[in-house]
Amino acid sequence: MIEFGERIADGVFSRYEGELLTSQRSDFQKIDVYEHPFFGRVLTLDDLIQTTTRDEFTYHEMLVHPALAARDRVERVLIIGGGDGGTLRHVLMHAPRSVVMCEIDEAVIHLCRELLPQLSDGAFEDPRAELVIGDGAAFVAEHEDAFDAIIVDGSDPVGPAVVLFSEEFYSACRRALRDDGVFISQTGSPIFQTDEFQMAYGNLTASFGRCHPYLSFVPTYPGTLWSYMSATKGEPLPDATGITARLSSREITCKLYSEAVHHGAFALPPFVKELCETARPVPVPRG
Amino acid sequence: MIEFGERIADGVFSRYEGELLTSQRSDFQKIDVYEHPFFGRVLTLDDLIQTTTRDEFTYHEMLVHPALAARDRVERVLIIGGGDGGTLRHVLMHAPRSVVMCEIDEAVIHLCRELLPQLSDGAFEDPRAELVIGDGAAFVAEHEDAFDAIIVDGSDPVGPAVVLFSEEFYSACRRALRDDGVFISQTGSPIFQTDEFQMAYGNLTASFGRCHPYLSFVPTYPGTLWSYMSATKGEPLPDATGITARLSSREITCKLYSEAVHHGAFALPPFVKELCETARPVPVPRG
Repeated sequence: MIEFGERIADGVFSRYEGELLTSQRSDFQKIDVYEHPFFGRVLTLDDLIQTTTRDEFTYHEMLVHPALAARDRVERVLIIGGGDGGTLRHVLMHAPRSVVMCEIDEAVIHLCRELLPQLSDGAFEDPRAELVIGDGAAFVAEHEDAFDAIIVDGSDPVGPAVVLFSEEFYSACRRALRDDGVFISQTGSPIFQTDEFQMAYGNLTASFGRCHPYLSFVPTYPGTLWSYMSATKGEPLPDATGITARLSSREITCKLYSEAVHHGAFALPPFVKELCETARPVPVPRG
Repeated sequence: MIEFGERIADGVFSRYEGELLTSQRSDFQKIDVYEHPFFGRVLTLDDLIQTTTRDEFTYHEMLVHPALAARDRVERVLIIGGGDGGTLRHVLMHAPRSVVMCEIDEAVIHLCRELLPQLSDGAFEDPRAELVIGDGAAFVAEHEDAFDAIIVDGSDPVGPAVVLFSEEFYSACRRALRDDGVFISQTGSPIFQTDEFQMAYGNLTASFGRCHPYLSFVPTYPGTLWSYMSATKGEPLPDATGITARLSSREITCKLYSEAVHHGAFALPPFVKELCETARPVPVPRG
């Protein structure tokens, strides 16, 4: 057994005990996979937990379904990041015509397909899925009016993922979306990562004119309470109706997400609303 | 600096670093208070975190306001446990005629008034507050048709608090409530303490005929995602309207709670609904 875990804040730590299955260093980051007695297989990048086989549903359901269950037709979807394949698997449940997944680190994909295969569960072999290995920000900038949804499944805004919180990137995403398009990104803990939360909110609002955050929880993320932000060109996600019928017609069964949970997740507590009201667009710190 | 923290599940731990201010052993439990760089003053009982000065609002707002903001008149309230005084302080915001607080361990009250005074903030001196040192279950059993709300602010169902999860106790609470009365209890993590969650749900449903759980988060509780259960003789809490107007007329300002958050909290994820559907009444384990 080996100890791993994260520093969450000053004097606050998560600690796990598990068996280290592999440790690799790719061109971009350190990649470790653990076998854990409660959470199953655990993927860490630079020692930060990205996903586990037991609680992946909490993150992937809330990253994907609020955007795609809100729309009647989702033809073309772009995923940025998401190397473990869980987001791709959930997107394919919504019967899109095509999904492009742009992941910068091929080594993450290889390792997850080998050691956490239930995350993608065959999604990479789906003929509707196209894999691009490369820089997601550069890829988005090459497209215009091309996608019904862009889902950013990146890591924290340090290292290679920092650009994915910038106003330039968000504006490029807006241009790459079709008229009724939806943008979604994970945006960190509203308790322990308030700078990151406010940077995302400020820059998304500057790019899209408005932004609707929502909250849920991921047991293995720092602080558990987790935020996502949505920005749309058409109808905002908090106003979405017909979700239950769409989940049913697409034969999607959820453990965490439902129409009621959708609307509950957008009901922000006053302290989170205050974070939004005081957020301003800011340049991302240089990695 | 000293390390403290909890075992949350097999191989899952929280860890904190702070300064130990005092450690006492009362007739009932070990009581420690720490100074922590992020969470401020931290109270632990038998090494389990009960509250902190920084995040107490998350627990106390969601334990008290959903019950009391749902009702136009709250004349008499009973709190069982709640030695730190935070629940009493929040109950008094709703302008009750009287509040009885029945806490088994006087040493907790003394220590919190000395070292975490912002939790009660003068509530113990309020002429509407009556303090009873004794066994909460026995106290409830002596009353009939006496309270508009009973709020159980106990610790986990081990040791002296185990009886507070029993069908006998819940039935006594039902008898002690007035016709439109509300019962509320914290009921643990729906991820890591599913046995406790199901025991409370099964026994409350057996006693009251129905039970409405709701979810929120407490950063320093194991797993952060936290459950509470409500049971009412009259209108169920999920149907409550007029919350915003009542908070406003009572001049209550919240950081976490609002009318929208109230309804969102009762929107249970499918995996939690399933815990409810498979719960049965069970005898509490003998301490």
